[in-house]
Amino acid sequence: MFSYLYSMHYRRDETISALATAHGTGAIAVLRLSGPKAIEITEKLFCTRSMKPISLKNAAGNTVHFGCINDNGYILDEVLVTLFRNPHSFTGEDVIEISCHGSIFIQQQLLLLLNRHGARPARPGEFTMRAFMNGKMDLSQAEAVADLVASQSSTSHQVAMAQMRGGFSEKIRVLREHLLNFASLIELELDFSEEDVEFADRSDLKNLLVTIDRLVARLLESFEVGNVIKNGIPVAIVGKPNAGKSTLLNALLDEERAIVSDIPGTTRDTIEDEITIDGILYRFIDTAGLRNTTDTIESIGVSRSYDKIRESSITLYVFDVHEMTRGELNLELAEIQKHLNGSQQVVLIGNQIDRMNMDEVQKEFEGLDVLFISAKEKLYIDDLRMKLVALFDKSTVNIRETIVTNVRHADALRHTHAAIERTLSGLNNNIPGDLIAQDIREALHHLGEITGEVTNDELLGNIFGKFCIGK
Amino acid sequence: MFSYLYSMHYRRDETISALATAHGTGAIAVLRLSGPKAIEITEKLFCTRSMKPISLKNAAGNTVHFGCINDNGYILDEVLVTLFRNPHSFTGEDVIEISCHGSIFIQQQLLLLLNRHGARPARPGEFTMRAFMNGKMDLSQAEAVADLVASQSSTSHQVAMAQMRGGFSEKIRVLREHLLNFASLIELELDFSEEDVEFADRSDLKNLLVTIDRLVARLLESFEVGNVIKNGIPVAIVGKPNAGKSTLLNALLDEERAIVSDIPGTTRDTIEDEITIDGILYRFIDTAGLRNTTDTIESIGVSRSYDKIRESSITLYVFDVHEMTRGELNLELAEIQKHLNGSQQVVLIGNQIDRMNMDEVQKEFEGLDVLFISAKEKLYIDDLRMKLVALFDKSTVNIRETIVTNVRHADALRHTHAAIERTLSGLNNNIPGDLIAQDIREALHHLGEITGEVTNDELLGNIFGKFCIGK
Repeated sequence: MFSYLYSMHYRRDETISALATAHGTGAIAVLRLSGPKAIEITEKLFCTRSMKPISLKNAAGNTVHFGCINDNGYILDEVLVTLFRNPHSFTGEDVIEISCHGSIFIQQQLLLLLNRHGARPARPGEFTMRAFMNGKMDLSQAEAVADLVASQSSTSHQVAMAQMRGGFSEKIRVLREHLLNFASLIELELDFSEEDVEFADRSDLKNLLVTIDRLVARLLESFEVGNVIKNGIPVAIVGKPNAGKSTLLNALLDEERAIVSDIPGTTRDTIEDEITIDGILYRFIDTAGLRNTTDTIESIGVSRSYDKIRESSITLYVFDVHEMTRGELNLELAEIQKHLNGSQQVVLIGNQIDRMNMDEVQKEFEGLDVLFISAKEKLYIDDLRMKLVALFDKSTVNIRETIVTNVRHADALRHTHAAIERTLSGLNNNIPGDLIAQDIREALHHLGEITGEVTNDELLGNIFGKFCIGK
Repeated sequence: MFSYLYSMHYRRDETISALATAHGTGAIAVLRLSGPKAIEITEKLFCTRSMKPISLKNAAGNTVHFGCINDNGYILDEVLVTLFRNPHSFTGEDVIEISCHGSIFIQQQLLLLLNRHGARPARPGEFTMRAFMNGKMDLSQAEAVADLVASQSSTSHQVAMAQMRGGFSEKIRVLREHLLNFASLIELELDFSEEDVEFADRSDLKNLLVTIDRLVARLLESFEVGNVIKNGIPVAIVGKPNAGKSTLLNALLDEERAIVSDIPGTTRDTIEDEITIDGILYRFIDTAGLRNTTDTIESIGVSRSYDKIRESSITLYVFDVHEMTRGELNLELAEIQKHLNGSQQVVLIGNQIDRMNMDEVQKEFEGLDVLFISAKEKLYIDDLRMKLVALFDKSTVNIRETIVTNVRHADALRHTHAAIERTLSGLNNNIPGDLIAQDIREALHHLGEITGEVTNDELLGNIFGKFCIGK
């Protein structure tokens, strides 16, 4: 990860440049410049087909201009130059976007040319950082930009989109305003401490704090879902060796691949062991086969499988219907349940029904909630997909609500919660007003960290250093 | 390859859409629409942050507009919409470019959304094909667009750029005008054939034809260089097993990789066995070791090596300086030269000088043009690079001149040449004017194929089918 003092390095006199579109060859590519000299630098290179300079000095913002890039008398490319005038741009600075032919060679040469003329290469996330520094977005919105670009499923996209559009920051800002109001009243009392007045009605204040804490708690709860949305629901597929675990995983993945390849004009990076069902990402965890063993090495493998079960939200227990009795299945289930912590869900999957008489099978496992499939023949795989969707819906908050997906935000909310708890307990124990004010200030601080109203360089470096270059 | 009747499929009422930037995740991606409904379709989806529709009906061409993409009440993304009004666009139609956040998910969804609203997926090369159909560029320029996007070296870029800017078509057009003038005079004579007049002075006409043929011949000659520029100079590295052939190749490639990785903000596809020196692409051909053998299988390998030597322009013969005498080297060289056709060049490379006394080495091979290096220690690799550059320069025409790089163009020029030869011989043998006119018409036809003044659907399908989608 890239980390340095961002705000100290934000020199407003510097102009930055980077490739903004995906790496590789395309029909076109877009290079972006931002800073006070963006227009001036572009002008130096921009000309007509007959090499007459094109002036952009008086061009209006949000306009597009056709011309050539002239490298010392050599025409590098015919391009479109789009001009944005500060503050009406992504960064809030003067911004130029150059849309060139998408060969890697032209992209490289154009970048080098821009650098030679004074637009230095941008650092990771530097465009978004400048947008934040210039008040175009708060910190939570800036982080959502990175989430948006990385989103793989419709749900994670939806959550990032809501956050980028300010839904999340808005809730935090409202909370913080309540707290600020509280803090000022308490601090006002301190000014008049000789006179023993109470500007803030203590029971009203307690109610307010409880209300705020309830909101913080709800946001914190949403983090569990938010984390799942962002990183996917961990699903462990377990069962005895040869129960058909990999065949099942392949059956699920194959279907996904077929769906993905239906979408025209797009490629997708190889899907290893993730699928998206109904907009939710499911992440499959490999496990060794489960069996009782006295062999030390093998028992380490089995113990690791149980670790995986603990890390997962859903466990798919796969068994071969003609190799297991109802009694054996109950024993297996009991063993697995020893390793669960209560929040995980187990789905029993009876595999290889293609090789059995269904009546017999259903009779054998009657009363147990078993999903019968054939991974090999791809029978009832859709039912399993529907089951996975149902399991997530059951345990979730409304996705349209504000959802916290960011570990940093969750930490800040936890610190806020702790500070509010301390304030409440202080109020109940009649501790001095200045100590109470201090606890409130701490809560205000942590809430401010989320939106960037309270910030420091290390924090900014951590956030923007994770961005890609060009964003 | 994709091939169908392009012009028959160019329905002017259809609006097409595609991703225009490289596949994969970037900070931003650009989708392009072209056709009569490009603006109308975009308008249906385009709105403010508070979901009020944004009208583009009266927006001026070449302007950029910020807003959201609204999928039935759900905001998919915040985007920039750039509007180009016909005929002032790449295709000559109304064109919309939507610049969205560069996640694959958003790209897919946006494409699907555009398709649902009536902008069908574009076929490969369809944007450029429309530009050609609408007279925005001739066929030779359209082909140069594909070459430009594919260009890997500064020289191939330079040649494609010159062709796209019309340098090549211009020469062809001038040639064709001369010929047309000739043809009309001859045909005018045919109208007065009863009267036995000669509007065209025969010796003037012959001079003109010779001048034209000389130009055609020069363009055809340039194809040899053009082909090399486009596809790289084939270089065979041969020598006995363990002479250090792969070490030498690696030494050359390593240096290249170091240079490439110095360029900021760019990645590059793995370079297998190509390097660019001084703007020229050198393509290395693997060969089995050369040695005299009676083993049948091995002798097939050796015979294949000789085939490779024949295919290459330059042969690097590598030998270990302390394992070969001057006499042996001369014998080897004589054997190789049996397999050359005269236009290839051979460079003798004495390897592993790090393990020898230089005075002794130079004495042993005195009088022979040997380049002494150490591939392992990377000594004098730069001298080899300079040697490769010198070998190309020696045999080349001026790159700034018009250069033919396209097999199709070369074929058309060859047919033109043949038709002119026939015309000249006809004139010398006093054959009837109508036969001469026919030969000239044929030459005109083939020249017209290059610029697209003469065209057919199969030809268009062949050309544009090789483009990527979105171009």
